[in-house]
Amino acid sequence: MRDRESYFIEKISKDSRKYIGDDGVLLGDYIVSSDSFFEDVHFKKSWMSLGKIAKKSLLVNISDAIAMNSTPKYMILNISIPEEFKLKDIDALVEGFLEVAKKYDIKIVGGDTIRGKKLDISITLLSTKRGKIVKRSGLKRGDIIFYTGSLGSCAKDLKRLISGENLKRSKMIEPILNPKFFYEASRFFSSAMDISDGLFFELQRLSKINRVGFRFFSSFDKRIGCSGEEYEVLFSIKRKDQNAIKRIARKNRVTLKRVAIALRGRFRSYCKPHHQ
Amino acid sequence: MRDRESYFIEKISKDSRKYIGDDGVLLGDYIVSSDSFFEDVHFKKSWMSLGKIAKKSLLVNISDAIAMNSTPKYMILNISIPEEFKLKDIDALVEGFLEVAKKYDIKIVGGDTIRGKKLDISITLLSTKRGKIVKRSGLKRGDIIFYTGSLGSCAKDLKRLISGENLKRSKMIEPILNPKFFYEASRFFSSAMDISDGLFFELQRLSKINRVGFRFFSSFDKRIGCSGEEYEVLFSIKRKDQNAIKRIARKNRVTLKRVAIALRGRFRSYCKPHHQ
Repeated sequence: MRDRESYFIEKISKDSRKYIGDDGVLLGDYIVSSDSFFEDVHFKKSWMSLGKIAKKSLLVNISDAIAMNSTPKYMILNISIPEEFKLKDIDALVEGFLEVAKKYDIKIVGGDTIRGKKLDISITLLSTKRGKIVKRSGLKRGDIIFYTGSLGSCAKDLKRLISGENLKRSKMIEPILNPKFFYEASRFFSSAMDISDGLFFELQRLSKINRVGFRFFSSFDKRIGCSGEEYEVLFSIKRKDQNAIKRIARKNRVTLKRVAIALRGRFRSYCKPHHQ
Repeated sequence: MRDRESYFIEKISKDSRKYIGDDGVLLGDYIVSSDSFFEDVHFKKSWMSLGKIAKKSLLVNISDAIAMNSTPKYMILNISIPEEFKLKDIDALVEGFLEVAKKYDIKIVGGDTIRGKKLDISITLLSTKRGKIVKRSGLKRGDIIFYTGSLGSCAKDLKRLISGENLKRSKMIEPILNPKFFYEASRFFSSAMDISDGLFFELQRLSKINRVGFRFFSSFDKRIGCSGEEYEVLFSIKRKDQNAIKRIARKNRVTLKRVAIALRGRFRSYCKPHHQ
Protein backbone atom coordinates (compact mmCIF):
# COMPACT_ATOMS: atom_id res chain seq x y z
CA MET A 1 0.00 0.00 0.00
CA ARG A 2 1.16 3.43 -0.85
CA ASP A 3 -1.05 4.62 2.02
CA ARG A 4 1.31 3.89 4.85
CA GLU A 5 4.10 5.78 3.13
CA SER A 6 1.79 8.72 2.42
CA TYR A 7 0.75 8.69 6.05
CA PHE A 8 4.40 8.88 7.10
CA ILE A 9 5.14 11.73 4.70
CA GLU A 10 2.01 13.59 5.80
CA LYS A 11 2.98 13.36 9.47
CA ILE A 12 6.69 13.93 9.17
CA SER A 13 6.27 17.04 7.03
CA LYS A 14 3.62 18.74 9.08
CA ASP A 15 5.98 21.54 10.07
CA SER A 16 7.74 21.76 6.76
CA ARG A 17 5.01 21.77 4.13
CA LYS A 18 6.69 24.50 2.15
CA TYR A 19 9.64 22.24 1.39
CA ILE A 20 7.93 18.98 0.54
CA GLY A 21 6.13 18.06 -2.65
CA ASP A 22 8.61 18.70 -5.44
CA ASP A 23 11.36 16.61 -6.98
CA GLY A 24 13.83 18.75 -5.08
CA VAL A 25 14.16 21.79 -2.84
CA LEU A 26 16.24 24.95 -3.18
CA LEU A 27 18.64 25.38 -0.23
CA GLY A 28 21.20 28.15 -0.62
CA ASP A 29 22.98 27.69 -3.93
CA TYR A 30 21.70 24.20 -4.59
CA ILE A 31 18.62 22.26 -5.50
CA VAL A 32 18.72 19.19 -3.27
CA SER A 33 16.95 15.98 -4.32
CA SER A 34 17.13 12.40 -3.13
CA ASP A 35 15.88 9.02 -4.25
CA SER A 36 16.39 5.49 -3.00
CA PHE A 37 16.88 2.42 -5.16
CA PHE A 38 16.52 -0.69 -3.01
CA GLU A 39 16.87 -4.36 -3.84
CA ASP A 40 13.56 -6.25 -3.74
CA VAL A 41 11.71 -2.94 -3.66
CA HIS A 42 12.78 -1.26 -6.90
CA PHE A 43 14.69 -4.08 -8.52
CA LYS A 44 15.84 -7.67 -8.26
CA LYS A 45 19.49 -8.44 -8.82
CA SER A 46 18.51 -11.02 -11.44
CA TRP A 47 16.97 -8.31 -13.62
CA MET A 48 20.15 -6.55 -14.60
CA SER A 49 23.89 -6.42 -14.13
CA LEU A 50 25.35 -4.64 -11.10
CA GLY A 51 26.72 -1.93 -13.37
CA LYS A 52 23.22 -1.28 -14.70
CA ILE A 53 21.80 -1.18 -11.19
CA ALA A 54 24.36 1.46 -10.18
CA LYS A 55 23.65 3.42 -13.36
CA LYS A 56 19.89 3.36 -12.91
CA SER A 57 20.09 4.38 -9.25
CA LEU A 58 21.99 7.49 -10.31
CA LEU A 59 19.97 8.20 -13.47
CA VAL A 60 16.66 8.30 -11.60
CA ASN A 61 18.20 10.88 -9.30
CA ILE A 62 19.54 12.92 -12.21
CA SER A 63 16.04 12.78 -13.67
CA ASP A 64 14.74 14.61 -10.56
CA ALA A 65 17.46 17.24 -10.82
CA ILE A 66 16.69 17.87 -14.49
CA ALA A 67 12.96 18.05 -13.74
CA MET A 68 13.63 21.05 -11.48
CA ASN A 69 15.67 22.68 -14.27
CA SER A 70 18.95 22.20 -12.48
CA THR A 71 22.35 20.72 -13.30
CA PRO A 72 23.55 18.02 -10.90
CA LYS A 73 26.98 18.81 -9.44
CA TYR A 74 27.57 16.79 -6.30
CA MET A 75 26.41 13.40 -5.16
CA ILE A 76 26.13 11.84 -1.70
CA LEU A 77 26.01 8.07 -1.97
CA ASN A 78 24.64 5.84 0.79
CA ILE A 79 25.03 2.21 -0.12
CA SER A 80 24.55 -1.11 1.60
CA ILE A 81 26.73 -3.75 -0.05
CA PRO A 82 25.68 -7.39 0.44
CA GLU A 83 28.21 -9.37 2.45
CA GLU A 84 28.64 -12.02 -0.24
CA PHE A 85 29.83 -9.52 -2.87
CA LYS A 86 33.20 -10.22 -4.45
CA LEU A 87 35.68 -7.50 -5.35
CA LYS A 88 34.67 -7.85 -9.00
CA ASP A 89 31.06 -7.17 -8.01
CA ILE A 90 32.19 -3.99 -6.32
CA ASP A 91 34.21 -3.08 -9.40
CA ALA A 92 31.08 -3.47 -11.51
CA LEU A 93 29.09 -1.21 -9.20
CA VAL A 94 31.81 1.44 -9.10
CA GLU A 95 32.13 1.37 -12.87
CA GLY A 96 28.40 1.97 -13.26
CA PHE A 97 28.36 4.90 -10.85
CA LEU A 98 31.48 6.48 -12.34
CA GLU A 99 30.29 6.09 -15.93
CA VAL A 100 27.14 8.10 -15.26
CA ALA A 101 28.88 10.53 -12.88
CA LYS A 102 31.47 11.25 -15.54
CA LYS A 103 28.92 11.68 -18.32
CA TYR A 104 27.00 14.22 -16.25
CA ASP A 105 30.10 15.74 -14.63
CA ILE A 106 28.99 14.91 -11.09
CA LYS A 107 31.47 14.71 -8.21
CA ILE A 108 30.98 12.06 -5.56
CA VAL A 109 31.56 13.94 -2.31
CA GLY A 110 30.47 11.70 0.51
CA GLY A 111 27.98 9.31 1.97
CA ASP A 112 28.09 6.11 3.89
CA THR A 113 29.11 2.62 2.82
CA ILE A 114 27.85 -0.24 4.93
CA ARG A 115 27.79 -3.99 4.79
CA GLY A 116 24.26 -5.29 4.62
CA LYS A 117 22.02 -8.09 3.48
CA LYS A 118 20.81 -6.37 0.35
CA LEU A 119 22.05 -3.94 -2.26
CA ASP A 120 20.33 -0.75 -1.17
CA ILE A 121 21.24 2.60 -2.66
CA SER A 122 20.18 6.09 -1.59
CA ILE A 123 21.54 9.05 -3.49
CA THR A 124 21.26 12.75 -2.70
CA LEU A 125 22.17 15.23 -5.42
CA LEU A 126 23.10 18.88 -5.06
CA SER A 127 22.38 20.68 -8.31
CA THR A 128 22.75 24.26 -9.49
CA LYS A 129 19.76 25.97 -10.94
CA ARG A 130 19.62 27.10 -14.54
CA GLY A 131 17.30 30.06 -15.14
CA LYS A 132 13.99 29.63 -13.39
CA ILE A 133 13.25 26.67 -11.15
CA VAL A 134 10.52 24.50 -12.61
CA LYS A 135 8.11 23.09 -10.04
CA ARG A 136 5.10 20.84 -9.90
CA SER A 137 3.04 23.84 -8.92
CA GLY A 138 2.51 26.63 -11.45
CA LEU A 139 0.10 24.82 -13.75
CA LYS A 140 -2.92 27.03 -14.57
CA ARG A 141 -6.29 26.24 -16.10
CA GLY A 142 -6.03 26.44 -19.87
CA ASP A 143 -2.46 25.11 -19.89
CA ILE A 144 -1.68 22.15 -22.12
CA ILE A 145 -0.03 19.02 -20.69
CA PHE A 146 2.52 17.01 -22.68
CA TYR A 147 4.88 14.18 -22.03
CA THR A 148 8.09 13.28 -23.80
CA GLY A 149 8.78 10.00 -25.57
CA SER A 150 6.36 7.15 -25.23
CA LEU A 151 4.85 5.39 -22.24
CA GLY A 152 3.93 1.78 -21.59
CA SER A 153 7.10 -0.14 -22.34
CA CYS A 154 8.25 -0.10 -18.72
CA ALA A 155 5.15 -1.83 -17.34
CA LYS A 156 5.46 -4.42 -20.11
CA ASP A 157 9.16 -4.90 -19.53
CA LEU A 158 8.64 -5.11 -15.77
CA LYS A 159 6.28 -8.04 -16.35
CA ARG A 160 8.86 -9.69 -18.58
CA LEU A 161 11.55 -9.21 -15.94
CA ILE A 162 9.31 -10.64 -13.23
CA SER A 163 8.57 -13.67 -15.41
CA GLY A 164 12.31 -14.29 -15.68
CA GLU A 165 12.98 -12.98 -19.16
CA ASN A 166 16.26 -11.31 -19.93
CA LEU A 167 16.04 -7.80 -21.34
CA LYS A 168 18.86 -6.22 -23.26
CA ARG A 169 17.56 -2.81 -24.09
CA SER A 170 14.77 -1.34 -22.06
CA LYS A 171 13.99 1.99 -20.43
CA MET A 172 13.14 -0.14 -17.39
CA ILE A 173 16.85 -1.03 -17.23
CA GLU A 174 18.27 2.27 -18.41
CA PRO A 175 16.04 5.35 -18.37
CA ILE A 176 16.50 7.76 -21.26
CA LEU A 177 16.90 11.34 -20.06
CA ASN A 178 16.73 14.35 -22.33
CA PRO A 179 18.45 17.13 -20.42
CA LYS A 180 19.12 19.22 -23.52
CA PHE A 181 15.47 19.30 -24.49
CA PHE A 182 14.40 20.05 -20.95
CA TYR A 183 16.87 22.86 -20.39
CA GLU A 184 16.01 24.51 -23.69
CA ALA A 185 12.27 24.07 -23.37
CA SER A 186 12.01 24.86 -19.65
CA ARG A 187 11.47 28.58 -20.13
CA PHE A 188 8.04 27.70 -21.50
CA PHE A 189 7.08 25.27 -18.72
CA SER A 190 4.46 26.31 -16.19
CA SER A 191 5.07 23.02 -14.35
CA ALA A 192 7.08 19.85 -14.86
CA MET A 193 7.99 16.58 -13.17
CA ASP A 194 9.38 13.25 -14.19
CA ILE A 195 7.07 10.27 -14.60
CA SER A 196 8.31 7.81 -12.01
CA ASP A 197 5.00 6.47 -10.64
CA GLY A 198 3.06 6.45 -13.91
CA LEU A 199 1.26 9.11 -15.96
CA PHE A 200 -2.06 8.89 -14.12
CA PHE A 201 -0.50 9.01 -10.71
CA GLU A 202 1.63 12.05 -11.63
CA LEU A 203 -1.46 13.72 -13.12
CA GLN A 204 -3.24 13.11 -9.82
CA ARG A 205 -0.35 14.87 -8.08
CA LEU A 206 -0.55 17.81 -10.51
CA SER A 207 -4.31 17.91 -10.02
CA LYS A 208 -3.99 18.05 -6.24
CA ILE A 209 -1.16 20.59 -6.10
CA ASN A 210 -2.64 22.91 -8.72
CA ARG A 211 -6.34 22.28 -8.03
CA VAL A 212 -7.17 21.48 -11.62
CA GLY A 213 -8.81 18.67 -13.54
CA PHE A 214 -8.00 17.56 -17.08
CA ARG A 215 -9.83 17.14 -20.37
CA PHE A 216 -7.90 14.50 -22.27
CA PHE A 217 -7.21 14.91 -25.99
CA SER A 218 -7.40 11.16 -26.49
CA SER A 219 -8.03 8.18 -24.30
CA PHE A 220 -5.11 6.66 -22.51
CA ASP A 221 -5.17 2.96 -21.83
CA LYS A 222 -4.08 1.90 -18.37
CA ARG A 223 -1.14 0.09 -20.00
CA ILE A 224 0.05 3.61 -20.85
CA GLY A 225 -1.30 5.55 -17.90
CA CYS A 226 -0.27 3.17 -15.14
CA SER A 227 3.23 2.36 -16.40
CA GLY A 228 5.76 3.50 -13.79
CA GLU A 229 9.50 4.17 -13.89
CA GLU A 230 9.28 5.68 -17.34
CA TYR A 231 11.34 8.75 -16.42
CA GLU A 232 9.81 10.67 -19.26
CA VAL A 233 8.98 14.31 -18.53
CA LEU A 234 5.44 15.48 -17.89
CA PHE A 235 5.12 19.23 -18.39
CA SER A 236 2.61 21.98 -18.99
CA ILE A 237 2.81 25.08 -21.15
CA LYS A 238 0.58 27.94 -22.17
CA ARG A 239 -1.55 27.14 -25.19
CA LYS A 240 0.24 29.83 -27.24
CA ASP A 241 3.64 28.19 -26.76
CA GLN A 242 2.74 24.92 -28.42
CA ASN A 243 4.56 25.63 -31.66
CA ALA A 244 7.68 26.84 -29.89
CA ILE A 245 7.81 23.67 -27.80
CA LYS A 246 7.31 21.45 -30.81
CA ARG A 247 10.21 23.15 -32.56
CA ILE A 248 12.52 22.59 -29.61
CA ALA A 249 11.43 18.95 -29.41
CA ARG A 250 12.12 18.39 -33.12
CA LYS A 251 15.52 20.03 -32.82
CA ASN A 252 16.41 17.70 -29.92
CA ARG A 253 14.82 14.64 -31.54
CA VAL A 254 12.37 14.23 -28.72
CA THR A 255 8.82 13.15 -29.52
CA LEU A 256 6.00 14.79 -27.62
CA LYS A 257 2.56 13.50 -26.76
CA ARG A 258 -0.21 16.01 -26.06
CA VAL A 259 -2.16 14.69 -23.09
CA ALA A 260 -4.78 17.08 -21.84
CA ILE A 261 -5.87 20.61 -21.15
CA ALA A 262 -6.15 21.72 -17.53
CA LEU A 263 -9.61 22.73 -16.41
CA ARG A 264 -11.58 23.27 -13.25
CA GLY A 265 -11.98 19.90 -11.55
CA ARG A 266 -10.07 17.06 -10.02
CA PHE A 267 -8.33 13.99 -11.36
CA ARG A 268 -7.74 10.72 -9.56
CA SER A 269 -5.60 7.86 -10.77
CA TYR A 270 -7.15 4.42 -10.68
CA CYS A 271 -3.84 2.54 -11.06
CA LYS A 272 -2.57 0.20 -8.41
CA PRO A 273 0.65 1.53 -6.85
CA HIS A 274 3.40 -0.11 -8.85
CA HIS A 275 5.89 -0.81 -6.09
CA GLN A 276 4.30 -3.28 -3.71
CA MET B 1 34.88 -7.30 6.94
CA ARG B 2 35.38 -3.61 6.78
CA ASP B 3 37.73 -4.33 3.87
CA ARG B 4 35.14 -4.65 1.16
CA GLU B 5 33.58 -1.35 2.14
CA SER B 6 37.00 0.33 2.20
CA TYR B 7 37.69 -1.10 -1.24
CA PHE B 8 34.45 0.39 -2.53
CA ILE B 9 35.19 3.80 -1.00
CA GLU B 10 38.74 3.73 -2.34
CA LYS B 11 37.56 3.01 -5.88
CA ILE B 12 34.50 5.24 -5.99
CA SER B 13 36.38 8.25 -4.68
CA LYS B 14 39.39 8.04 -6.94
CA ASP B 15 38.42 11.23 -8.78
CA SER B 16 37.14 13.04 -5.73
CA ARG B 17 39.73 12.51 -3.02
CA LYS B 18 39.59 16.11 -1.92
CA TYR B 19 35.98 15.68 -0.81
CA ILE B 20 36.11 12.33 0.94
CA GLY B 21 37.51 11.58 4.37
CA ASP B 22 35.76 13.96 6.73
CA ASP B 23 32.50 13.77 8.60
CA GLY B 24 31.10 16.21 6.07
CA VAL B 25 32.01 18.38 3.10
CA LEU B 26 31.55 22.11 2.47
CA LEU B 27 29.44 22.79 -0.62
CA GLY B 28 28.38 26.39 -1.12
CA ASP B 29 26.79 27.64 2.08
CA TYR B 30 26.44 24.23 3.70
CA ILE B 31 28.39 21.44 5.27
CA VAL B 32 26.81 18.27 3.89
CA SER B 33 27.03 15.02 5.85
CA SER B 34 25.24 11.71 5.63
CA ASP B 35 24.93 8.53 7.66
CA SER B 36 22.85 5.40 7.35
CA PHE B 37 21.17 3.53 10.19
CA PHE B 38 20.00 0.15 8.96
CA GLU B 39 18.10 -2.62 10.68
CA ASP B 40 20.22 -5.73 11.28
CA VAL B 41 23.35 -3.71 10.46
CA HIS B 42 23.31 -0.96 13.08
CA PHE B 43 20.47 -2.14 15.27
CA LYS B 44 17.83 -4.76 15.88
CA LYS B 45 14.26 -3.67 16.40
CA SER B 46 14.16 -5.65 19.65
CA TRP B 47 16.88 -3.41 21.13
CA MET B 48 14.88 -0.25 21.43
CA SER B 49 11.55 1.39 20.71
CA LEU B 50 10.84 2.76 17.24
CA GLY B 51 10.96 6.27 18.62
CA LYS B 52 14.46 5.63 19.98
CA ILE B 53 15.56 4.19 16.63
CA ALA B 54 14.37 7.32 14.82
CA LYS B 55 16.07 9.51 17.42
CA LYS B 56 19.38 7.68 17.24
CA SER B 57 19.42 7.70 13.42
CA LEU B 58 19.16 11.48 13.52
CA LEU B 59 21.47 12.03 16.50
CA VAL B 60 24.37 10.17 14.88
CA ASN B 61 23.97 12.46 11.89
CA ILE B 62 23.86 15.57 14.09
CA SER B 63 27.03 14.27 15.74
CA ASP B 64 28.80 14.47 12.36
CA ALA B 65 27.55 17.99 11.76
CA ILE B 66 28.75 19.15 15.18
CA ALA B 67 32.12 17.47 14.65
CA MET B 68 32.71 19.76 11.64
CA ASN B 69 31.77 22.77 13.80
CA SER B 70 28.50 23.35 11.98
CA THR B 71 24.85 23.78 12.95
CA PRO B 72 22.45 21.38 11.27
CA LYS B 73 19.63 23.19 9.44
CA TYR B 74 18.01 20.89 6.89
CA MET B 75 17.48 17.17 6.74
CA ILE B 76 16.83 14.82 3.84
CA LEU B 77 15.29 11.59 5.09
CA ASN B 78 15.36 8.36 3.10
CA ILE B 79 13.47 5.66 4.88
CA SER B 80 12.32 2.15 4.12
CA ILE B 81 9.32 1.26 6.28
CA PRO B 82 8.61 -2.45 6.81
CA GLU B 83 5.35 -3.56 5.23
CA GLU B 84 3.97 -4.95 8.49
CA PHE B 85 4.17 -1.59 10.31
CA LYS B 86 0.93 -0.30 11.79
CA LEU B 87 -0.02 3.35 11.81
CA LYS B 88 0.96 3.56 15.48
CA ASP B 89 4.44 2.30 14.57
CA ILE B 90 4.72 5.09 12.04
CA ASP B 91 3.49 7.57 14.65
CA ALA B 92 6.26 6.39 16.98
CA LEU B 93 8.90 6.86 14.27
CA VAL B 94 7.62 10.30 13.32
CA GLU B 95 7.54 11.36 16.96
CA GLY B 96 11.18 10.34 17.39
CA PHE B 97 12.35 12.21 14.31
CA LEU B 98 10.34 15.32 15.15
CA GLU B 99 11.46 15.40 18.78
CA VAL B 100 15.12 15.57 17.81
CA ALA B 101 14.49 17.80 14.79
CA LYS B 102 12.64 20.25 17.00
CA LYS B 103 15.29 20.21 19.72
CA TYR B 104 18.01 21.01 17.19
CA ASP B 105 15.80 23.26 15.05
CA ILE B 106 16.22 21.14 11.91
CA LYS B 107 13.72 21.34 9.04
CA ILE B 108 12.83 18.14 7.19
CA VAL B 109 12.92 19.18 3.55
CA GLY B 110 12.73 16.03 1.47
CA GLY B 111 13.84 12.51 0.87
CA ASP B 112 12.20 9.32 -0.18
CA THR B 113 9.81 7.03 1.70
CA ILE B 114 9.55 3.47 0.48
CA ARG B 115 7.95 0.27 1.61
CA GLY B 116 10.55 -2.37 2.30
CA LYS B 117 11.39 -5.46 4.29
CA LYS B 118 13.43 -3.70 6.94
CA LEU B 119 13.56 -0.39 8.73
CA ASP B 120 16.43 1.31 6.95
CA ILE B 121 17.19 4.97 7.46
CA SER B 122 19.61 7.22 5.60
CA ILE B 123 19.82 10.87 6.55
CA THR B 124 21.65 13.71 4.86
CA LEU B 125 22.10 16.96 6.77
CA LEU B 126 22.87 20.40 5.44
CA SER B 127 24.50 22.47 8.15
CA THR B 128 25.81 26.01 8.34
CA LYS B 129 29.33 26.54 9.49
CA ARG B 130 30.19 28.39 12.67
CA GLY B 131 33.59 30.05 12.62
CA LYS B 132 36.27 27.78 11.24
CA ILE B 133 35.47 24.34 9.89
CA VAL B 134 37.07 21.64 12.01
CA LYS B 135 38.43 18.69 10.05
CA ARG B 136 40.13 15.40 10.69
CA SER B 137 43.24 16.81 9.09
CA GLY B 138 45.11 19.63 10.81
CA LEU B 139 46.61 17.62 13.66
CA LYS B 140 50.33 18.39 14.06
CA ARG B 141 53.10 16.62 15.93
CA GLY B 142 53.18 17.88 19.50
CA ASP B 143 49.40 18.33 19.64
CA ILE B 144 47.55 16.71 22.52
CA ILE B 145 44.62 14.38 21.88
CA PHE B 146 41.57 14.30 24.16
CA TYR B 147 38.18 12.74 24.13
CA THR B 148 35.00 13.85 25.86
CA GLY B 149 33.07 11.79 28.40
CA SER B 150 33.94 8.17 28.95
CA LEU B 151 34.34 5.22 26.61
CA GLY B 152 33.53 1.55 26.99
CA SER B 153 29.88 1.49 28.02
CA CYS B 154 28.64 1.09 24.46
CA ALA B 155 30.57 -2.13 23.77
CA LYS B 156 29.33 -3.48 27.08
CA ASP B 157 25.75 -2.40 26.44
CA LEU B 158 25.88 -3.80 22.91
CA LYS B 159 26.73 -7.22 24.36
CA ARG B 160 23.85 -6.91 26.78
CA LEU B 161 21.48 -5.99 23.95
CA ILE B 162 22.68 -8.92 21.87
CA SER B 163 22.15 -11.28 24.79
CA GLY B 164 18.55 -10.09 24.98
CA GLU B 165 18.75 -7.75 27.95
CA ASN B 166 16.58 -4.70 28.07
CA LEU B 167 18.42 -1.42 28.52
CA LYS B 168 16.71 1.68 29.79
CA ARG B 169 19.45 4.26 29.78
CA SER B 170 22.46 3.77 27.59
CA LYS B 171 24.54 5.87 25.20
CA MET B 172 24.15 2.87 22.89
CA ILE B 173 20.43 3.70 22.72
CA GLU B 174 20.69 7.46 22.94
CA PRO B 175 24.04 9.10 22.24
CA ILE B 176 24.89 12.15 24.35
CA LEU B 177 26.03 15.08 22.25
CA ASN B 178 27.65 18.17 23.65
CA PRO B 179 27.21 20.82 20.98
CA LYS B 180 27.73 23.72 23.41
CA PHE B 181 31.09 22.43 24.53
CA PHE B 182 32.16 21.68 20.97
CA TYR B 183 31.15 25.04 19.56
CA GLU B 184 32.85 26.93 22.37
CA ALA B 185 36.01 24.82 22.39
CA SER B 186 36.34 24.43 18.63
CA ARG B 187 38.49 27.51 18.16
CA PHE B 188 41.27 25.61 19.89
CA PHE B 189 40.86 22.37 17.91
CA SER B 190 43.50 21.45 15.34
CA SER B 191 41.39 18.42 14.39
CA ALA B 192 38.24 16.70 15.59
CA MET B 193 35.87 13.87 14.78
CA ASP B 194 33.21 11.89 16.54
CA ILE B 195 34.00 8.41 17.84
CA SER B 196 31.64 6.17 15.92
CA ASP B 197 33.92 3.21 15.16
CA GLY B 198 35.87 3.17 18.42
CA LEU B 199 38.78 5.20 19.80
CA PHE B 200 41.55 3.08 18.29
CA PHE B 201 39.98 2.98 14.87
CA GLU B 202 39.47 6.75 14.85
CA LEU B 203 43.06 7.24 16.02
CA GLN B 204 44.17 5.07 13.11
CA ARG B 205 42.26 7.40 10.80
CA LEU B 206 43.88 10.46 12.40
CA SER B 207 47.27 8.77 12.10
CA LYS B 208 46.79 8.05 8.42
CA ILE B 209 45.37 11.44 7.46
CA ASN B 210 47.88 13.47 9.46
CA ARG B 211 50.89 11.13 9.18
CA VAL B 212 51.49 10.98 12.88
CA GLY B 213 51.85 8.36 15.56
CA PHE B 214 50.86 8.65 19.22
CA ARG B 215 52.52 8.34 22.61
CA PHE B 216 49.76 7.43 25.04
CA PHE B 217 49.56 9.04 28.47
CA SER B 218 48.08 5.88 29.94
CA SER B 219 47.21 2.47 28.63
CA PHE B 220 43.80 1.99 27.13
CA ASP B 221 42.18 -1.39 27.45
CA LYS B 222 40.51 -2.71 24.34
CA ARG B 223 37.20 -2.55 26.21
CA ILE B 224 37.76 1.22 26.03
CA GLY B 225 39.62 1.53 22.76
CA CYS B 226 37.49 -0.78 20.66
CA SER B 227 34.08 0.39 21.87
CA GLY B 228 32.15 1.81 18.91
CA GLU B 229 29.12 4.05 18.61
CA GLU B 230 30.19 6.15 21.55
CA TYR B 231 29.65 9.45 19.74
CA GLU B 232 32.02 11.17 22.07
CA VAL B 233 34.32 13.73 20.47
CA LEU B 234 37.97 13.03 19.75
CA PHE B 235 39.93 16.24 19.30
CA SER B 236 43.43 17.63 19.29
CA ILE B 237 44.75 20.96 20.55
CA LYS B 238 48.08 22.70 20.95
CA ARG B 239 49.82 21.85 24.19
CA LYS B 240 49.54 25.49 25.37
CA ASP B 241 45.75 25.44 25.10
CA GLN B 242 45.21 22.66 27.62
CA ASN B 243 44.10 24.92 30.44
CA ALA B 244 41.74 26.88 28.23
CA ILE B 245 40.08 23.68 27.04
CA LYS B 246 39.75 22.32 30.53
CA ARG B 247 38.04 25.53 31.62
CA ILE B 248 35.52 25.28 28.77
CA ALA B 249 34.89 21.63 29.61
CA ARG B 250 34.25 22.41 33.28
CA LYS B 251 31.90 25.24 32.37
CA ASN B 252 29.89 22.89 30.12
CA ARG B 253 30.07 19.98 32.57
CA VAL B 254 31.91 17.81 30.11
CA THR B 255 34.65 15.53 31.37
CA LEU B 256 37.79 15.20 29.28
CA LYS B 257 40.25 12.35 28.98
CA ARG B 258 43.78 13.11 27.82
CA VAL B 259 44.76 10.34 25.43
CA ALA B 260 48.09 10.92 23.76
CA ILE B 261 50.57 13.29 22.23
CA ALA B 262 51.08 13.18 18.48
CA LEU B 263 54.54 12.20 17.33
CA ARG B 264 56.34 10.96 14.26
CA GLY B 265 55.11 7.46 13.51
CA ARG B 266 52.04 5.48 12.68
CA PHE B 267 49.22 3.98 14.66
CA ARG B 268 47.14 0.96 13.76
CA SER B 269 44.03 -0.25 15.53
CA TYR B 270 43.91 -3.92 16.46
CA CYS B 271 40.16 -3.96 17.11
CA LYS B 272 37.81 -6.11 15.12
CA PRO B 273 35.43 -3.94 13.10
CA HIS B 274 32.34 -3.65 15.29
CA HIS B 275 29.67 -3.87 12.61
CA GLN B 276 29.97 -7.21 11.00
